Amino acid sequence: MPARNMNSFAQDQDTSSAVRSAWRAAYDRVRQATELLCTPLETEDYVIQTAPEASPAKWHLAHVSWFFETFLLVPYLPGYRPRDTAYERLFNSYYEQLGRPWPRADRGFLARPTVAEVYSYRMHVDENMRALLERVTERDWALVLQRLAIGLNHEQQHQELLLTDLKLNFSVNPLRPAYRIDLVDPSGRVAPPMDWVAFPGGVYEIGQQGGDFAYDNEGPRHRVYLRPFRLSTRPVTNGEYLSFMADKGYDNPALWLSDGWTTVRHHAWRNPLYWEQIGEQWWHYTLAGLRRLDLEAPVCHVSHYEAQAYAAWAGKRLPTEVEWEVAAAGLPITGNLRETSYLHPAAAPAGKGLLQMYGDVWEHTASSYQPYPGYRADPGALGEYNGKFMCNQYVLRGGSCLTPADHIRASYRNFFYPHERWQFQGFRLAEDLE
Amino acid sequence: MPARNMNSFAQDQDTSSAVRSAWRAAYDRVRQATELLCTPLETEDYVIQTAPEASPAKWHLAHVSWFFETFLLVPYLPGYRPRDTAYERLFNSYYEQLGRPWPRADRGFLARPTVAEVYSYRMHVDENMRALLERVTERDWALVLQRLAIGLNHEQQHQELLLTDLKLNFSVNPLRPAYRIDLVDPSGRVAPPMDWVAFPGGVYEIGQQGGDFAYDNEGPRHRVYLRPFRLSTRPVTNGEYLSFMADKGYDNPALWLSDGWTTVRHHAWRNPLYWEQIGEQWWHYTLAGLRRLDLEAPVCHVSHYEAQAYAAWAGKRLPTEVEWEVAAAGLPITGNLRETSYLHPAAAPAGKGLLQMYGDVWEHTASSYQPYPGYRADPGALGEYNGKFMCNQYVLRGGSCLTPADHIRASYRNFFYPHERWQFQGFRLAEDLE
Amino acid sequence: MPARNMNSFAQDQDTSSAVRSAWRAAYDRVRQATELLCTPLETEDYVIQTAPEASPAKWHLAHVSWFFETFLLVPYLPGYRPRDTAYERLFNSYYEQLGRPWPRADRGFLARPTVAEVYSYRMHVDENMRALLERVTERDWALVLQRLAIGLNHEQQHQELLLTDLKLNFSVNPLRPAYRIDLVDPSGRVAPPMDWVAFPGGVYEIGQQGGDFAYDNEGPRHRVYLRPFRLSTRPVTNGEYLSFMADKGYDNPALWLSDGWTTVRHHAWRNPLYWEQIGEQWWHYTLAGLRRLDLEAPVCHVSHYEAQAYAAWAGKRLPTEVEWEVAAAGLPITGNLRETSYLHPAAAPAGKGLLQMYGDVWEHTASSYQPYPGYRADPGALGEYNGKFMCNQYVLRGGSCLTPADHIRASYRNFFYPHERWQFQGFRLAEDLE
Amino acid sequence: MPARNMNSFAQDQDTSSAVRSAWRAAYDRVRQATELLCTPLETEDYVIQTAPEASPAKWHLAHVSWFFETFLLVPYLPGYRPRDTAYERLFNSYYEQLGRPWPRADRGFLARPTVAEVYSYRMHVDENMRALLERVTERDWALVLQRLAIGLNHEQQHQELLLTDLKLNFSVNPLRPAYRIDLVDPSGRVAPPMDWVAFPGGVYEIGQQGGDFAYDNEGPRHRVYLRPFRLSTRPVTNGEYLSFMADKGYDNPALWLSDGWTTVRHHAWRNPLYWEQIGEQWWHYTLAGLRRLDLEAPVCHVSHYEAQAYAAWAGKRLPTEVEWEVAAAGLPITGNLRETSYLHPAAAPAGKGLLQMYGDVWEHTASSYQPYPGYRADPGALGEYNGKFMCNQYVLRGGSCLTPADHIRASYRNFFYPHERWQFQGFRLAEDLE
Repeated sequence: MPARNMNSFAQDQDTSSAVRSAWRAAYDRVRQATELLCTPLETEDYVIQTAPEASPAKWHLAHVSWFFETFLLVPYLPGYRPRDTAYERLFNSYYEQLGRPWPRADRGFLARPTVAEVYSYRMHVDENMRALLERVTERDWALVLQRLAIGLNHEQQHQELLLTDLKLNFSVNPLRPAYRIDLVDPSGRVAPPMDWVAFPGGVYEIGQQGGDFAYDNEGPRHRVYLRPFRLSTRPVTNGEYLSFMADKGYDNPALWLSDGWTTVRHHAWRNPLYWEQIGEQWWHYTLAGLRRLDLEAPVCHVSHYEAQAYAAWAGKRLPTEVEWEVAAAGLPITGNLRETSYLHPAAAPAGKGLLQMYGDVWEHTASSYQPYPGYRADPGALGEYNGKFMCNQYVLRGGSCLTPADHIRASYRNFFYPHERWQFQGFRLAEDLE
Repeated sequence: MPARNMNSFAQDQDTSSAVRSAWRAAYDRVRQATELLCTPLETEDYVIQTAPEASPAKWHLAHVSWFFETFLLVPYLPGYRPRDTAYERLFNSYYEQLGRPWPRADRGFLARPTVAEVYSYRMHVDENMRALLERVTERDWALVLQRLAIGLNHEQQHQELLLTDLKLNFSVNPLRPAYRIDLVDPSGRVAPPMDWVAFPGGVYEIGQQGGDFAYDNEGPRHRVYLRPFRLSTRPVTNGEYLSFMADKGYDNPALWLSDGWTTVRHHAWRNPLYWEQIGEQWWHYTLAGLRRLDLEAPVCHVSHYEAQAYAAWAGKRLPTEVEWEVAAAGLPITGNLRETSYLHPAAAPAGKGLLQMYGDVWEHTASSYQPYPGYRADPGALGEYNGKFMCNQYVLRGGSCLTPADHIRASYRNFFYPHERWQFQGFRLAEDLE
Repeated sequence: MPARNMNSFAQDQDTSSAVRSAWRAAYDRVRQATELLCTPLETEDYVIQTAPEASPAKWHLAHVSWFFETFLLVPYLPGYRPRDTAYERLFNSYYEQLGRPWPRADRGFLARPTVAEVYSYRMHVDENMRALLERVTERDWALVLQRLAIGLNHEQQHQELLLTDLKLNFSVNPLRPAYRIDLVDPSGRVAPPMDWVAFPGGVYEIGQQGGDFAYDNEGPRHRVYLRPFRLSTRPVTNGEYLSFMADKGYDNPALWLSDGWTTVRHHAWRNPLYWEQIGEQWWHYTLAGLRRLDLEAPVCHVSHYEAQAYAAWAGKRLPTEVEWEVAAAGLPITGNLRETSYLHPAAAPAGKGLLQMYGDVWEHTASSYQPYPGYRADPGALGEYNGKFMCNQYVLRGGSCLTPADHIRASYRNFFYPHERWQFQGFRLAEDLE
Repeated sequence: MPARNMNSFAQDQDTSSAVRSAWRAAYDRVRQATELLCTPLETEDYVIQTAPEASPAKWHLAHVSWFFETFLLVPYLPGYRPRDTAYERLFNSYYEQLGRPWPRADRGFLARPTVAEVYSYRMHVDENMRALLERVTERDWALVLQRLAIGLNHEQQHQELLLTDLKLNFSVNPLRPAYRIDLVDPSGRVAPPMDWVAFPGGVYEIGQQGGDFAYDNEGPRHRVYLRPFRLSTRPVTNGEYLSFMADKGYDNPALWLSDGWTTVRHHAWRNPLYWEQIGEQWWHYTLAGLRRLDLEAPVCHVSHYEAQAYAAWAGKRLPTEVEWEVAAAGLPITGNLRETSYLHPAAAPAGKGLLQMYGDVWEHTASSYQPYPGYRADPGALGEYNGKFMCNQYVLRGGSCLTPADHIRASYRNFFYPHERWQFQGFRLAEDLE
């Protein structure tokens, strides 16, 4: 079973040892990928937390292991006991039905368990997970596989978060440490001019197709009525965003949502997160340290509020998530994803039609994060995974330069609060055609 | 022109003196209604503000006058000068394009202008508005009428807010002052059992029809695809809500949205706003003072979060605003509205089909407040009326026992933050049929 | 018994009707003085509160009456019942032993009781107080007189607070209402140059002498050892303070206490409270509205932190409260006190020796507010009057232009937190002589 | 030069190589002692900060080195350049005259410099300090020695803080890590009954004598007038404090200062910091982990407010700092100090007269931290060391079980805010004799 098919459930019922081995390999691959991302870190880098949303790397490493322990080992591996009862609280992120989680803002308060102990916890979980995959009965097989897929996708999400959080945590340090100094800088390329791709109105279907893995929030598949619209061929660039800034975009309340304007003034925002002007030149902090701003690359680390204000300034609007998914349906999943190893957005390549739909930046949409018609969260604690967040957040689509290629798809719904900026977030434009 | 047709624009182009008189009468009627609501108030009652969202009565009286002054007298009445330059700031609610408004939370800081001075300001505006309606040219007539209709509907909204805010401001006082002690108490009636009304799936149209007045956020009229659903015949009652409380609804995180659970714990909510238990008996504070809870009346003063948690507990969901509007289309606009003079929700009357769709309580929907497809806010400061709030809020439908009958309609979209409870807010249930 | 002797206890044991009449007259005089101060107020002015420390005028009027009710009528007038049980909470300022007081910051939340009802409450208390003074037994006489003296002095304190609070509450209103527009403006006089008066070192005695009324915090009288020092002949003027500002006093951390520097930056202080620069000219808000700054008058509305920083800048220090009292001993109690009716500090008159020790501004001292050696607070709720505040506050001496002449004396200790500025606070300088 | 004489300046003028060697040895001894305290730490333990007042161990290690670099190497070692310009900000604690220090609450945000880099920084400073001591000219010798003594005493203060901060930072972790599990537990001894030692009234002298090192805030030596008083022979014990708790001490506002009562309710304090009741038994968190409470040992980790409330409950008061110093004068500096290696208070030994004046717990006094008569802070940034904190804090005396014996003396003034509890703070009682 190749890596690309980690999310395939075609062989659900097959419990042969070949299939068990394939799943074990998939498990090992994801787990190792997480640890590989940590290779450049010093022990101290694993510990700190500078904002409630930016968890320590150490916490991510432990939490994803707790996830396997809690949802797979405890219920399905006979005789398994949690490694440490304190971990049940410390590494529970937000599953209220499993007891009061350790406060999110206080994850950086924990010197112990040490980094070494956390790696030991991972190893312990890995050994038991391998035992589980070997021994699980035919009766439990389908349920275990379903949860395993969630667990692996969950760990991939935390791989991305581990890097976004590290970036934020490093960025406040005047020493400006780099995560890696050997990253390729893709600047130099010129993005093609922004153009438009039109779509007719009518009834469409969106949502997960069934078959491959998807989160529960991607379904049920359902029909929607759309008016004719068009999307910009590529996201807005840093250079274009500078024009908005030069035109006093951050000073003009007419462009902003009410809550956005309050946010802008409260934080005194004047530019995207991580940008700074030194003399006449704009720089920004990246995972490779401070770099000159690449005017051709997609603007990144802007909030929903900023994306919406830019769109208003440009006389356009943001796409709805339905429009985005309709447009993405059938496009190949390629782009500046994690495998590219830039770990930063790059200028759009030459090309026709929709560019950069996958990778580079998570794309803001105009859609608040709501359940699809007929959606029901799973019963039990795992039902808290997605459903309870369907309020006050907005949907982003398409993955970023930190997202693994086998983790993204047309129906994938990411979501953040409209004021948040620490993810790799950008946007493209949309327009009505009637 | 009868009062019911205040929102009709059929005679837009007719500038005859009969039509001018009719509009002047409509203006006088709305303005007098506002002042009539203040008859029971002591001077001190006009001044206080106990929460940012609960403006003093005096401020409401002045703000609605400022609205006519700013959007009609200054641009359309030749030679008119604002009464007081300080008022331009003090009584601007949130129009950022007109200068920095006085902070909402500080409206209770203003002993001056006195109540008498505010009434004098109203009189001054009224005299000039009458002059405007008499003298406005044919060229400006349509624009003036359009803004006049907004101004009158705006003042009606503030009539309702004046009472909801007064209720909140009075409620914190241990003396428990009543707004009016002579209000009829409608309790005693038994609500019919909750039943269901089903609707087929398919493509519907919602949004304003054109013709009569509507706010810009009610359009454009557009098509939506709905799956089959059904709505409860009446809102959830106090008695039913007590069952949710008795079943530890406020203690069970599995029922709540994540932000809702945070809110419940932060405020230590255990019941709807204004409720209190004395011995075994539940009471609640009303505009007539403290009253025994009427178990048959719709539950009121619950937030979106509480409505959603109740629905989850009941195994149902909240209606979307589209479903509500589809269901309401064609129903007569009758019910326990302001004209009934209860100023409090009452038990549903006997009857078949959908009951209490209008009046009693604003009904929570599952829909976040977003622009309709093709929506564009007006340019200029008046464009801030509705559009900039389309973020982080939820739509409520149908009006309450404080809403004038000529102010509500099937397409009317009210909106509040999901944690807010001081409006007369309740809810009915919905369910998928597939 | 003349007004000046309100605080005399020489005739404690005399319960003749002449003495009863004299005390009743003293009572009436103080109570009427309070109401006289309210003559210029509109009803709305009595209600508002714009900061936790600035209580509404209405609350002051009721609280001082509650004080007589609670500490005199209830315990000593047979059959007396409190006017309203809710008042027992609403108008209790901080006597925790009498139940949880209504929160200080929420005193502006109370539309009711109305102003008229508060005056009626006053009248009710007055009638009963007169009955008490007529009927009190010989056995209770001494105790009643002692509490009466506290009650009258307490009401005088609130007369001053009523004005300082009104000033603060009015000052935030862009309409800049004046308390009285008919106040005499004393500017025009030139203050004499600052000079010094020296005092030898040695053992002194300070504290109340016994005999006349004093608060418990003014005793016991006790010995202190002082080193030789000198005091400036008059307080620092506005003109002198402008030199400190011009020399970047507010930007120089070397001049400030650590907590003071934190406060300055947190509030972005650049000048005393109520000052504002219009063009080149400095103005300040007074009880008569906005006035040009009088460079010769004592600087007013500066915090302890600002006084201390100025002294450091001038190479001097603030006097200790012991030094102040030693210097004041024997000086006549004259000056710009409330009876002058300026209600604002004025330039020092021509003269030799110490000027303006009484009146104009409460003078900051270097002394934190601590108990004198041997001090014990009274048992019971009245013991909360002074003692429990002996922490984190600083002593001010000498009374202000709002203090009645029969309320101030050499041993009088006023106290405020070092960041507070809304009282009429200024300062003079001191220096060591060895 | 033996360790005890580190603070002696008898040989100030002697720049012989023997004296230079002696000072170098003193320097090495203090520096090594700091690092010895860190031996039990894991790398992660150096990084975290869980409260603004509890700096990471790593920061302490760097800050004390920055102190030597800034105040000695830069001005006195020709050609010396700061190791890293970023360190000048990061490791400046509060010297505002040297530029805006890195925010105290954000010291735990710094993964870099790593622990290894901080040790390398220390080594770098040490090498240069040794060079300085070797090469400093006769002209600079006295100044250098003066600052060296401050720097060494400063580092000793941070040795104590390093442990108190680590204790606080560890304490919030549900894993309850121990700093050292091999600490001797001194419980089992029975404290002698509390008795009293009396002192006559009169004029005393307190303050530094000159000769040995003392901080500037310990002088000038000056006369004070005292009334007769007596002090308890030993501090209040845990067992005695439990009686206060059992008598509802935390529920009785009559015992508390106003700000103390506000603090108690705000934090819902019910017992000293680190205490917890498991079943019927009281335990407390110590540097050796969780231990049973020793009823005979001095109560520890109580705020000034709690000490004052206990004294009020006992009908006594806290000693003033003058009384404490008068009583301590002439007593030998022995006791449960750091050299004892308990790192926790222990029951008083059998004995007559004043016990435990030094060591065990810093003793709260009734004295707010104010300058002595004639005190002047040094000019320049070093003048910020003590003087600017003379506001809102209270004086503690006598050192604790974490204080090195050669760091404490009768005139030593420690100071903390009255709500703070994370230092090893206890108290003894005092009483007036007249």
